[in-house]
Amino acid sequence: MMRQVNVAVLGAGTVGGGVVDAIRRNGRLMASRLGIELGVHRLVVRDTRKRRDFDTNGAKVGADWREAVVDPRTDIVVELVGGTTTAREMVLAALQAGKPVVTANKALLSAHGEELFAAAREGGANLYYEASVAGGIPIIKVMREALIGNRVTAAYGILNGTCNYILTRMRAEGAEFETVLKDAQRLGYAEADPSLDVDGIDALHKAGILASLAHGFWVDVKKVAAEGIRGVTPLDMDFSGRLGYTIKLLAAIKLEAPKAPARGGKAAKAGASGLRISVTVCPTLVPNHHVLASVSDVFNAVFVRGDIVGDTLYYGRGAGRNATASSVLSDLADAALDLRCGERQRLPPFVPHEEFGALMAPGDVVSSHYLRLSVTDKPGVLARIAAILAKEQIGISSVIQPEGHEGASVPLIFMLHHATRSAVDRALKSIRRLPVVTGEPALFRVETFE
Amino acid sequence: MMRQVNVAVLGAGTVGGGVVDAIRRNGRLMASRLGIELGVHRLVVRDTRKRRDFDTNGAKVGADWREAVVDPRTDIVVELVGGTTTAREMVLAALQAGKPVVTANKALLSAHGEELFAAAREGGANLYYEASVAGGIPIIKVMREALIGNRVTAAYGILNGTCNYILTRMRAEGAEFETVLKDAQRLGYAEADPSLDVDGIDALHKAGILASLAHGFWVDVKKVAAEGIRGVTPLDMDFSGRLGYTIKLLAAIKLEAPKAPARGGKAAKAGASGLRISVTVCPTLVPNHHVLASVSDVFNAVFVRGDIVGDTLYYGRGAGRNATASSVLSDLADAALDLRCGERQRLPPFVPHEEFGALMAPGDVVSSHYLRLSVTDKPGVLARIAAILAKEQIGISSVIQPEGHEGASVPLIFMLHHATRSAVDRALKSIRRLPVVTGEPALFRVETFE
Repeated sequence: MMRQVNVAVLGAGTVGGGVVDAIRRNGRLMASRLGIELGVHRLVVRDTRKRRDFDTNGAKVGADWREAVVDPRTDIVVELVGGTTTAREMVLAALQAGKPVVTANKALLSAHGEELFAAAREGGANLYYEASVAGGIPIIKVMREALIGNRVTAAYGILNGTCNYILTRMRAEGAEFETVLKDAQRLGYAEADPSLDVDGIDALHKAGILASLAHGFWVDVKKVAAEGIRGVTPLDMDFSGRLGYTIKLLAAIKLEAPKAPARGGKAAKAGASGLRISVTVCPTLVPNHHVLASVSDVFNAVFVRGDIVGDTLYYGRGAGRNATASSVLSDLADAALDLRCGERQRLPPFVPHEEFGALMAPGDVVSSHYLRLSVTDKPGVLARIAAILAKEQIGISSVIQPEGHEGASVPLIFMLHHATRSAVDRALKSIRRLPVVTGEPALFRVETFE
Repeated sequence: MMRQVNVAVLGAGTVGGGVVDAIRRNGRLMASRLGIELGVHRLVVRDTRKRRDFDTNGAKVGADWREAVVDPRTDIVVELVGGTTTAREMVLAALQAGKPVVTANKALLSAHGEELFAAAREGGANLYYEASVAGGIPIIKVMREALIGNRVTAAYGILNGTCNYILTRMRAEGAEFETVLKDAQRLGYAEADPSLDVDGIDALHKAGILASLAHGFWVDVKKVAAEGIRGVTPLDMDFSGRLGYTIKLLAAIKLEAPKAPARGGKAAKAGASGLRISVTVCPTLVPNHHVLASVSDVFNAVFVRGDIVGDTLYYGRGAGRNATASSVLSDLADAALDLRCGERQRLPPFVPHEEFGALMAPGDVVSSHYLRLSVTDKPGVLARIAAILAKEQIGISSVIQPEGHEGASVPLIFMLHHATRSAVDRALKSIRRLPVVTGEPALFRVETFE
């Protein structure tokens, strides 16, 4: 028997239009695979008089989202308006009405995830959010279903297409960040205000969601400072290339060794008896031979290491009308199947199962680093910098003072051995104070994936 | 409420042991995520006296599989004995008893898929087979669930880890096929009789399953001749490298343009009104910049192009105890959830939805080719070969007669423009007849992913 499911789509922007259009194009194919027909019976828009660049395909177009949500014929609600205010009201209203919700809104999940998950529990409805992380890549399904038998020991993500596009072109053309950013803006790959993307905030939101799913406690990334790509120069691309690396904006989620048991206190208890994970988002040197290094342009990828499956990678378009629509369709199919089978929460949107999980303080995270300084070219400079690094117990694995940079100040590049970020920051603070150090130092992580 | 589900594991070999071991290690983690406890209550082995290299973890160990299947306490049956005889009986018996079955057996699915799917339908039980294709890569779930809203226009797979390991080392070391094969056998990456792997048969089985899932009709690959990697030489690796390519054993599944309507006949009808797809498995030149070129060693990857999502890639270990176990655990979780929700076939194992789908005759498949000949070094040779190619309307995009190959016979390499395989085969037949052509020609596909 074929069953009809009515979908109310809230928001007719890029993604909303993409979803309506995709259902028009492939709705019959989906129905033949699912045994369920998905129909968009309501489309909620801000301005009903505005002309659409897509066929609304018989949906009733209106401006009143509450009406669409409470409409008894509405089986599933799709929130695609973005933002964290109206979107939050929409999702809460639908869940409270016991209606399953599909959303692509990572900012909303990042800011109000726990509230929404609770509302889903109480409303007895489910919340689906495949499209919220890495666009067309089914990473949420992979984390929750495909890898359900695995403890995720590490996950690395190229989660922002704008940054990856900019870095890819900087590397290929030796171009400056600002130049490529302007192109990206012209091409629609970057917003007029690009900070959410290029400062790593968007990637951090996504990393927080992935970390929470992987480790079973809600990871609040507010405590993590994302580092964006504004500080990456052609010089850094050049040198990291010579050293055998590519620079990517990489989100790293790692299962760290438990803290040594300390006396009392929840934190100590957490560290001792629970998981300890680290989350970082910053420009990172990735070895050229690693599969993540070959992820170019606007593409995203997530590299997941499971204790059973080993290394896996998932790659695709991280944003855009169609890639996002594809993930929304996948969620709609799951929601429709769950409705048919009468289980409102076959898989709850989030299962907190690590009571004592804890996010490591950024300063305690250990890694190798790439440090580029601009110094006055005179004797003794290297010695003074080396002394400061030695004082913080930071080993130097290599130093490059490149040829052909004559003049008042020359670049000096250090590859630093494993050290805590706080040690590196302390050293950097002293190094900055040296009168021979001119201009802003660049500090990036070096990832070996071991 | 926590629910207990009893699993009977049939087969205690590499994968069977891996599954029992993985459930022992991560069973509690899975239970905390699922709300269902998976317990292996029966383990069926060939020889009950044999010592196991894994903890059977309280399972009742016996040799009688029928007893384990009919045991009323058995909720889910996992078939891991391999082969197509006893395995077939086991799966049929379980499905007929209305018990969900999880299998990793691609040979069985390839040979008896339609029979098993019918038995599942009749028995009202479900058949799960994530582990049957590409080991730890959740490609079955991706094809059936994540990409459900997409028409798959093309899919390319590196589906055999043994071949990929051999080709990777041949390229890195300039080594001969036979030399690396012996190493692979010593390291356990290749069987004593390697033909199933190196002749492309295993990859073809997997390609058939993927093609069937992608296109909604059962693709019988018996009509396709897999071409293995025995004919790949260090010379080919060297030249394809110089031309900017890497040689991979690639399975290509393409949605082809519909055939021009012909007069009557089911075939014509199929071609005209239904899908036409091509499936090929052979050594293929992949551009170095393409992400599939960076898939090395024993790793597998599947590159899927959807009409909505665009290009996506899924990468991981294609075989081995643990990678395969991870996929079995994912299937067990789905099976357990389906049991709890009381839907015996939330997603049927296979949904035939393309009545008029047809597999293109191998000879009709069009592609570019790499052709390496060994010829006697005398004037006029090139002219005679070029004439034969011209007669078959096959354009030549480049010819290389490398330096430093003096002697009776020298290598001669052609890059051929798009042509049907039958045209190329006809040309090759005439070329072979030329007295100046010595030794066996090598013919590989060239894939541009356009």
